[in-house]
Amino acid sequence: MLALGNILAKVRLQKPLVHHLTNNVTMGDCADATMSIGALPVMAHALQEVEEMVAAARAAVLNIGTLYPDQVDSMLAMGKKAREFGIPVVLDPVGAGATSYRTEVAELILRTVRPVVIKGNGGEIGTLAGMGTARVSGVHSMDGGGDPARAARALLGKLDYEAVVAVTGAVDLLTDGRQTVRIKNGHPLLPMVVGSGCMAASLVASFAAVEKNKLHAAAAALAAMSIAGELAAAAMPADAAESSPAEAFRAGKSIFGPACFKAYLLDVLYYLTPAELDRRAKIEVE
Amino acid sequence: MLALGNILAKVRLQKPLVHHLTNNVTMGDCADATMSIGALPVMAHALQEVEEMVAAARAAVLNIGTLYPDQVDSMLAMGKKAREFGIPVVLDPVGAGATSYRTEVAELILRTVRPVVIKGNGGEIGTLAGMGTARVSGVHSMDGGGDPARAARALLGKLDYEAVVAVTGAVDLLTDGRQTVRIKNGHPLLPMVVGSGCMAASLVASFAAVEKNKLHAAAAALAAMSIAGELAAAAMPADAAESSPAEAFRAGKSIFGPACFKAYLLDVLYYLTPAELDRRAKIEVE
Amino acid sequence: MLALGNILAKVRLQKPLVHHLTNNVTMGDCADATMSIGALPVMAHALQEVEEMVAAARAAVLNIGTLYPDQVDSMLAMGKKAREFGIPVVLDPVGAGATSYRTEVAELILRTVRPVVIKGNGGEIGTLAGMGTARVSGVHSMDGGGDPARAARALLGKLDYEAVVAVTGAVDLLTDGRQTVRIKNGHPLLPMVVGSGCMAASLVASFAAVEKNKLHAAAAALAAMSIAGELAAAAMPADAAESSPAEAFRAGKSIFGPACFKAYLLDVLYYLTPAELDRRAKIEVE
Repeated sequence: MLALGNILAKVRLQKPLVHHLTNNVTMGDCADATMSIGALPVMAHALQEVEEMVAAARAAVLNIGTLYPDQVDSMLAMGKKAREFGIPVVLDPVGAGATSYRTEVAELILRTVRPVVIKGNGGEIGTLAGMGTARVSGVHSMDGGGDPARAARALLGKLDYEAVVAVTGAVDLLTDGRQTVRIKNGHPLLPMVVGSGCMAASLVASFAAVEKNKLHAAAAALAAMSIAGELAAAAMPADAAESSPAEAFRAGKSIFGPACFKAYLLDVLYYLTPAELDRRAKIEVE
Repeated sequence: MLALGNILAKVRLQKPLVHHLTNNVTMGDCADATMSIGALPVMAHALQEVEEMVAAARAAVLNIGTLYPDQVDSMLAMGKKAREFGIPVVLDPVGAGATSYRTEVAELILRTVRPVVIKGNGGEIGTLAGMGTARVSGVHSMDGGGDPARAARALLGKLDYEAVVAVTGAVDLLTDGRQTVRIKNGHPLLPMVVGSGCMAASLVASFAAVEKNKLHAAAAALAAMSIAGELAAAAMPADAAESSPAEAFRAGKSIFGPACFKAYLLDVLYYLTPAELDRRAKIEVE
Repeated sequence: MLALGNILAKVRLQKPLVHHLTNNVTMGDCADATMSIGALPVMAHALQEVEEMVAAARAAVLNIGTLYPDQVDSMLAMGKKAREFGIPVVLDPVGAGATSYRTEVAELILRTVRPVVIKGNGGEIGTLAGMGTARVSGVHSMDGGGDPARAARALLGKLDYEAVVAVTGAVDLLTDGRQTVRIKNGHPLLPMVVGSGCMAASLVASFAAVEKNKLHAAAAALAAMSIAGELAAAAMPADAAESSPAEAFRAGKSIFGPACFKAYLLDVLYYLTPAELDRRAKIEVE
């Protein structure tokens, strides 16, 4: 079994600074998730300070969700400095496959920054892996990108350095080419929360900041996110709607949809204990 | 009677991609509202990808709430591509009238992009219609811009193409020059939610993506927003403060102000059924 | 005793427009807080409109949390116009000390804009005051920046104009060089809310818009924020976790962490009465 709780305990103890160059839609959510799990978020994108800021950080996130040329310049400068200092970088290739600009920038980051973890949905990873089947609409994976294990291995095969590829979905799949981890936790409301994927990348960086084994760090982070989804749903008011919300709502029951779920999700991340993470994780390693 | 619920049902079924070029303040709220109603949001502003992204979308939103020159360039490029592909564009002229830059950009978008729906508060629509009485402070309408029906007709008269003008307020008024719709739903907390107007524009685009009659689409969207406000307020805890919050709060009652209301609002949008939308809509058509 | 409630009453009555040039992470939170307290927020950063916008405003916030060169240009243009029109500017030097770029821009704003209130955490104020002990990691104060009273006086001594310096912390300290105010309200969850410091700056500007005595305005605003934190925590469900969240959560109690707390915080600001502010304030003046 992987000792996931131990990595969470180190996050809480060491409170690593995690630098983000991320999108404008979910930037606040990423800061919230980083803070809730026990790390310290910072977002800074000016070319004038990204190198100095990342040099003071313990990990970094590159998220291309609302990319633009100046931001790409800052990402490359920050990424090169991080590589020079041995600071782990997590790439979230949001919407790769939706436009050629996104795909090209994601590939440029892979070549020059060499992120140690690449975390995306099936469509994004499938695109970067060169799977003809991957289909991305906006930032949404349309068909899961085919077999995630095959996509992850194909992407690893295209890289000229060692990395972890994480494909999120109903079951999250992670591999470093030697070991493959499947995480079977989660809740149907998680993908309904707009920032859930971006927040997951922030958690991966927070965990990668304190743990040498990046596969285990990424697995612990994605398990924490999925388990938090389960617990957030479990914590909803007893009279609230779940399986058939419209009917329940008309019957005068409480409201509990993606927005309330998101607040609970962040609060569960704040509460989650290492022991809880270990006990609830449904993980398969091969 | 308008068949509003049917349009909502089509949104849920077709899950259209809705491209946003919007402000940085409420960007996350717009994404949340789009997702809650059943469509797929995407925000992308780089000139390098706006045309490719909108070509894959079913509708688009242009919101000038935090406009700047590069964004305006992207808006015009995106809008022209949308017009070329017949993709409906919704303009939210946030703060038009507050500065000459906003007013000029809104008028430039009207001339070159020809948005099929223009949705604003009384001050914004009154400004674009050339009503001398319109007064906008920041992004807030100060006097309702005078008679909304007159302002909407005046703005339509200035356009050299067919469009729907929607003037939001205690009563929403929409017209395409032939039919006029008034929506008498809503709740006093709605205008206290900073992003409510922007979220409404996202809903209008989501509905316009699936419905040919843009007046009906816009009416269904604004009715959905206003009804969601009513239901969100109705769903607040029984012991919570409403009419006299300060006194109630001091008496030890629950808290339920704009922030909790906003979470409930988004969750009601997620729950709202087509039948519920039709049953609760208080609409007058002339 | 300071008449804090009276200043809040004027905010509610006059509803001043408060212009923000702020960061992308907490921009929505700042708008929410401004709206909740009863003022009108506007965020506009284009050089084309900042002067016209601030000329229509009653106060302004400059927050360097995600600064970049174009924004700095807009801050200087807006600040100079505000100074010309006698509109009070509040500086939140977020992350000053973390990178030389942030420190230099904060110092440039001090010299050229002459903000009437400078509000920061211990590390930020200590950095600007030239205290060798100040340590800032990202946007987080690492050691409180030493003695806040000494740091505040040192910063005032470096300015060639009259101002109020506010150092936030477990106890907030404010001084204009003549009077020193200490605010002993607050709650441990407040610093866990990512945007709480930025929201406080928005409140300071909202209060400074309506009150000539800027020390009293800033004290009223920071007291309102801290008291709202106390009341938000007090309003949490009776069965919710507080001191030992993990154990309580496992025992099946409600969830109430930073995210739910933040929604309550905003709603308490909306409810807070002038009398409540006066009654609950734990203030020492010397």
